[in-house]
Amino acid sequence: MAYTYVWEYLVAPDKVGLFQRGYGPSGEWAELFRRAPGYLRTELHRDLSNPLRFLTVDYWQSRGDWEAFRARFSSEFEELDARGEKLTTRETEIGRFELAE
Amino acid sequence: MAYTYVWEYLVAPDKVGLFQRGYGPSGEWAELFRRAPGYLRTELHRDLSNPLRFLTVDYWQSRGDWEAFRARFSSEFEELDARGEKLTTRETEIGRFELAE
Repeated sequence: MAYTYVWEYLVAPDKVGLFQRGYGPSGEWAELFRRAPGYLRTELHRDLSNPLRFLTVDYWQSRGDWEAFRARFSSEFEELDARGEKLTTRETEIGRFELAE
Repeated sequence: MAYTYVWEYLVAPDKVGLFQRGYGPSGEWAELFRRAPGYLRTELHRDLSNPLRFLTVDYWQSRGDWEAFRARFSSEFEELDARGEKLTTRETEIGRFELAE
C-alpha cells in the first residue's frame, strides 16, 4: 500500500509560475525525490476557483522509503523548503495517508 | 489537463469497512463513474493518524466530462450520495482542480 502525503499551498501572486515549475511532476522537488528509492510520483492540482491555491500529492512505495529519503537528503530538503517558503503565503499539511489499492 | 476533485470524509466507526468498499477504486462510486465517458480513476487515501479520516480524489479527462456525467446520471448519483451520507459523520469538499501535466 503506497504512502502519500498531501499539502495545500497559497502562492504569492507574482510567484505562481515559479511555484508551478518547482512543485510540479518535473520540478525541483520531484527531481530531488527521484534520487531516492521508493519514490513514485508527484501530482500538482490547481484550484479552479482560486488560481493561487494548489494541492500537491506525493506518492512513495512506503513510509519507510519516505523516512529514509528524509534522513539521507536532509540538507537538500531544508534548502528547497526554505526557497519554497518564499513563494507561498501559506502551507498547510492536509495529511499523511496510505493509498487503498 | 485532467479535472480532479478532492473530498475529505470522517467515517462512522462501525462503517469503515462499508465506506472503504464503496469509495475505493473498485467501489460503487467508481462503478457508476465508469459508465460515463471521460472518467479516469478514483483514489482513496486513509489518514495514518486518524483511521476514520479519508480523502478521495477523482480524475476525469475534463470538467465537461464530469458535468455531462452529473447531468446524465443524476438519479443514480443522488441515490449513492444519500446512502453514502449514512456512513459518514462529516463530508468536506477540499476543492476542484486542474491537474498539471
